[in-house]
Amino acid sequence: MSSKVSPFAPAAFPALPALAGFDMATAEAGVRYRGRTDLWVLRAAPGTAVAGVFTKNKCPGAPVDFSKAALDVNAGDDPRLVVVNSGTANVFTGQAGRDAVQETARGMAETFGGKPEAVFIASTGVIGEPLDASKVTAQFADMKTRMTPDGWEEAARAIMTTDTYAKGATATAMIGETKVTINGIVKGSGMIAPDMATMLGYIATDAKISQNALRDMLSNLTETTFNSITVDSDTSTSDTVMLLASGKAGNEEITDPWSEAADPFFEALRSVMLDLALQVVKDGEGASKFITIKVTGAVDAGSARRIGLSVANSPLVKTAIAGQDANWGRIVMAVGKAGEPAERDKLTIMLGPHILATAGELAPDYKDAAGAAYMQNDEIVLGIDLALGKGEATVWTCDLTHGYIDINADYRS
Amino acid sequence: MSSKVSPFAPAAFPALPALAGFDMATAEAGVRYRGRTDLWVLRAAPGTAVAGVFTKNKCPGAPVDFSKAALDVNAGDDPRLVVVNSGTANVFTGQAGRDAVQETARGMAETFGGKPEAVFIASTGVIGEPLDASKVTAQFADMKTRMTPDGWEEAARAIMTTDTYAKGATATAMIGETKVTINGIVKGSGMIAPDMATMLGYIATDAKISQNALRDMLSNLTETTFNSITVDSDTSTSDTVMLLASGKAGNEEITDPWSEAADPFFEALRSVMLDLALQVVKDGEGASKFITIKVTGAVDAGSARRIGLSVANSPLVKTAIAGQDANWGRIVMAVGKAGEPAERDKLTIMLGPHILATAGELAPDYKDAAGAAYMQNDEIVLGIDLALGKGEATVWTCDLTHGYIDINADYRS
Repeated sequence: MSSKVSPFAPAAFPALPALAGFDMATAEAGVRYRGRTDLWVLRAAPGTAVAGVFTKNKCPGAPVDFSKAALDVNAGDDPRLVVVNSGTANVFTGQAGRDAVQETARGMAETFGGKPEAVFIASTGVIGEPLDASKVTAQFADMKTRMTPDGWEEAARAIMTTDTYAKGATATAMIGETKVTINGIVKGSGMIAPDMATMLGYIATDAKISQNALRDMLSNLTETTFNSITVDSDTSTSDTVMLLASGKAGNEEITDPWSEAADPFFEALRSVMLDLALQVVKDGEGASKFITIKVTGAVDAGSARRIGLSVANSPLVKTAIAGQDANWGRIVMAVGKAGEPAERDKLTIMLGPHILATAGELAPDYKDAAGAAYMQNDEIVLGIDLALGKGEATVWTCDLTHGYIDINADYRS
Repeated sequence: MSSKVSPFAPAAFPALPALAGFDMATAEAGVRYRGRTDLWVLRAAPGTAVAGVFTKNKCPGAPVDFSKAALDVNAGDDPRLVVVNSGTANVFTGQAGRDAVQETARGMAETFGGKPEAVFIASTGVIGEPLDASKVTAQFADMKTRMTPDGWEEAARAIMTTDTYAKGATATAMIGETKVTINGIVKGSGMIAPDMATMLGYIATDAKISQNALRDMLSNLTETTFNSITVDSDTSTSDTVMLLASGKAGNEEITDPWSEAADPFFEALRSVMLDLALQVVKDGEGASKFITIKVTGAVDAGSARRIGLSVANSPLVKTAIAGQDANWGRIVMAVGKAGEPAERDKLTIMLGPHILATAGELAPDYKDAAGAAYMQNDEIVLGIDLALGKGEATVWTCDLTHGYIDINADYRS
């Protein structure tokens, strides 16, 4: 496996402040990795509202099934608990996998209090190998003695698999006169590689938001952030994003996610989610280019997003960009194969500020030298205008390089 | 561009016999390549029945639009004409592209007789560069003096782009007491690469088949042959498969494609089409493994095919096979992401004769060493049983290697 750090890695992990209502610990459980942490426990104060979105893969892991059910458990006066291990995904592990999840949940409840069925569990790593839950549960008593509100960077490191850097983001917003804070961490590298590159995201805030409002905001923003990035079109069996709101900031509770009072929080949440999502793409397996695809003029936003993803997932577009080739023919092909409304003779393709092609042919003023120079950039913006309607969407991806083959043709050995 | 010949190339081009009712010639028109042929003209006797299937890409090339329309032209007592150039795809070339097609068709009709609008035209090569039709039409008069019924191998060579070997197949069948012959050639490497790797297939027979019967047979067999292969999921803007029946063998005309009399011909046609389709996969860009995916137990055949293609197109499955890794977790992932009915706990995954996983977990008798040994083979068979219904399908693909990146990150330079 390549150990080269992505060229898009930030200089340092951002400073994520302590958040009232949350504490946490990490540990070296030795599930698979040696000499690094692989276990994270997050404890949220009683009364914390929780929302979650999960993979649509039809073969999800046992932790996904368990956590989906936990969303509907009323935790009452107990803390809300999250436990995540890296190294093993506990996917396609049959009864042994279900038993491991139950054992982990029981261990969490015994140590930290509350009902086992209210615990949120995620596992990320190799598929098909059962999780030895005793290695995980053996850590809980010691972790309880080390719980701290200041552990976000350590948490981001403990849940990494093929990630080449730890990923976090933070933002603040005013709700009325009250300042609230949002922290988020994410792991993933290859949106969606099922083995070691599942995407797991955890976002926490001290704001007071009703459960229903929290769920509506998470669902809405997931579409334009985490669901608008792709590395290789593959969909993990474990993808999970959770959003927890402790309510400790003392703001007046938000119950209507679309109200004016909610707006600053909603925008801050969007910025955290988008920041985390783009960090995943920028750590895409083997990535040498970060690609933004802006689709305009589609018949609607959904169509625009599907066209954008068709381009983003095209191996031929991704290899052309890796080769610094302004190959707009492949972009036309990928627009056409999306199966969405598109008319060849109305299409405009832009490369950064350069119009490459318009009205069904090469733009008369386009200079190959300008395109070639633009393709030297690390960050590439493709513009696609369909001139059919008002639908717009932006999606993000990375290029397809020898590094991707290196990582994925060889990582288990 | 890599010039390494695919490890799956046959030892020699098969012997395609002359067929009554067809003659042809090739030429070096110099469209883009130097020192090789890049132009092929096929002339079929008056009365030849013709069927064609074309790309579903929404941004097709001008030749595709023209040829689709030509299918509905009654050629009367004139020959049916086909002209194919390699080097330039004449796609997304606007009015200049439409003009080039018209000029080519006029040149063909002037030289060989008949109506310009009845000519079938295909171009394959780089997208976005207009075809200089005068280079093509300048060859026609000389080609007319060299027309021969024995030119199939030369034809297969003239239409190649990134192909590493010429591809042909032949079969015979009895219709009643009459022996009929089917010849086919194809080019393509990367099913579906839009630039130099478009798939073009031409199949000719001396059998007498009504136009309607011919079209039904071609549509039906395309699904389980050319539409069941994939290299990289990308869909060319020029893909074309044509089937021409001269009727010169003297059999009693087949008008019902599903009749008992038609059956031997139908099966021979299937064998030619499947042979050609598999030759395309085996010449997949950078391929080092030929992969057959057999899906059983799906809710219906369409669902089985979509699940098979989801696995066949998964970059993570393809890179695992390139790395000789029996990574069934990625296969489970790719089944689940297809969006088709699937139940994790009923799934069985087989690798050749070995049961890897069953009933939602690793098969108890599976030995890693057996899987690892099997993965050393050049030809890999994956079996996926969903245990839901009777739907079955087989799809074929190749692995994703450094060779694919080499070819596609760099071919224009």
